[in-house]
Amino acid sequence: MEFDFTTLDPRERYKLLIGSVVPRPIALVTTVDENGVTNAAPFSFFNCFSHDPPILIIGVEERKGAPKDTVRNIRATKEFVVNIVSEEIAERMNICAVDFPEGVDELVPANLTPAAASAVKPPRIAESPVAMECKLMEELRFGEHGKRSIILGEVLRFHIHDAALGPRNHVNFDVLKPVGRLSGNGYAHTHDRFELKRIDYATWLANEGKAAADND
Amino acid sequence: MEFDFTTLDPRERYKLLIGSVVPRPIALVTTVDENGVTNAAPFSFFNCFSHDPPILIIGVEERKGAPKDTVRNIRATKEFVVNIVSEEIAERMNICAVDFPEGVDELVPANLTPAAASAVKPPRIAESPVAMECKLMEELRFGEHGKRSIILGEVLRFHIHDAALGPRNHVNFDVLKPVGRLSGNGYAHTHDRFELKRIDYATWLANEGKAAADND
Repeated sequence: MEFDFTTLDPRERYKLLIGSVVPRPIALVTTVDENGVTNAAPFSFFNCFSHDPPILIIGVEERKGAPKDTVRNIRATKEFVVNIVSEEIAERMNICAVDFPEGVDELVPANLTPAAASAVKPPRIAESPVAMECKLMEELRFGEHGKRSIILGEVLRFHIHDAALGPRNHVNFDVLKPVGRLSGNGYAHTHDRFELKRIDYATWLANEGKAAADND
Repeated sequence: MEFDFTTLDPRERYKLLIGSVVPRPIALVTTVDENGVTNAAPFSFFNCFSHDPPILIIGVEERKGAPKDTVRNIRATKEFVVNIVSEEIAERMNICAVDFPEGVDELVPANLTPAAASAVKPPRIAESPVAMECKLMEELRFGEHGKRSIILGEVLRFHIHDAALGPRNHVNFDVLKPVGRLSGNGYAHTHDRFELKRIDYATWLANEGKAAADND
C-alpha cells in the first residue's frame, strides 16, 4: 500500500507515522515559567542527535492553537531538563500528560519529586534514573503559523542513579528499565533484548565475502 | 552521580547518551550518488518530529574526517528513503553497517531488494515493512568544521506492507515487529508491550483529584 503524504489528511499521516517510527524514547521534560512554577510533560518526538556537541531534540505541537507550557517556558527561560522514563515512573509520567489547567505543577499530582539542577533553573525529577540539564540551542518552527516546534538543546549536566551506572560508564538496562513509546496507548518494555555484533570489512571479507566470491 | 558535559571527554558523553536515550527507532537510509549507485546505512539518531508537515530527522557523524556516503548523497541529490527495520531484516541491516569501501551498494551483500520509489530517485527496500520517501528540508551542522549533520526530511510518500496495515490506518505491531536500538551491540524487541490510557482532566478530577482533596 502506498500513501501520497502531500495530499493525505494530516490525521491519517499522524497515525501512520507514530505507528511506524517505533519504539520511540520518551523525554519527560521539566521547565519553569517566569514565576518559577514548574511544568512537566512527556514527549516521544525525541532523541539524541549528537554527542559532540551533545544535542537532544524534542518536537512539540501546539494545543488548541496555543503553545504548550513546555514551549512557552523554554522560549522564556532558554532552559529545560529531559528526564528519562523508567518502568517505575511510567504511570506517573502518564499523570503528567493530563491536560491540567495552565499553572499546575504536574509533579505534585504525579507524586514526583523535584530536585535542584546544577546549571539550569528547572528542577530534575529525583525518581528519573537519568536527567539531562539542557540549554536551548535553537528552535525551528514549521507548519501553519509555526505551530510545530522542533527544539534543539545542548546537554550541560548529566545525572544518573548510581545503581544504573555500570563499569566504564556503560548504562545498566536491567536497572534503567527504559520504556519505549508506540502508538495509541501503547508502550514497549525493553527486557527482551538481543545482540548484533558490528562487523568490520576485513571480517566480512573473510567470511561472507569469501562465500559470495565462491558462488561467482 | 553527576557529570559535567561541558568538560567530560566526548567518548564518555557518547556512552552515557546512547545508554540513556533508549530505545531508539532505526532508520535504514537509502540514497543514491550522482552516478546512481545506491547506498544503504542504518541510523538510530532518528525520529519523527512532526506530522504536519511530516518531518523525519536523522543525525549523522563524519567517518574518519569525511562525510559519510549518506550525507554526501543527500547533499548532492536532496533525497533519501527511510526504511524501517523489522526483526526479519535486522541481521541484513547489520550487513549494511559494515564499513564497505565507497561505491559499494550495501543492498547487494545484505541481500536486500531495491524497489523503485515513486517521488524520489533512491530505491526503497522491498523487505522493509515501511518505507518513507523524503526530500531534504534542511541540514544543520554542528561541531568542529560542521562534522555533525542533523538532516530534516519531509515525507512525500509512505509505503507499508499490506499485512502490517490494520483497520483505520493503525499499524499492526505483531506484523511490523519493529526493533529498537540500545547501546553497544544491543537491540530490543517490542513484543512485550503494555498500555497506559491517556487520562483527561475531568476524569483525573473525578478520581485522583477527589482522593487528593479528601486528604487535604
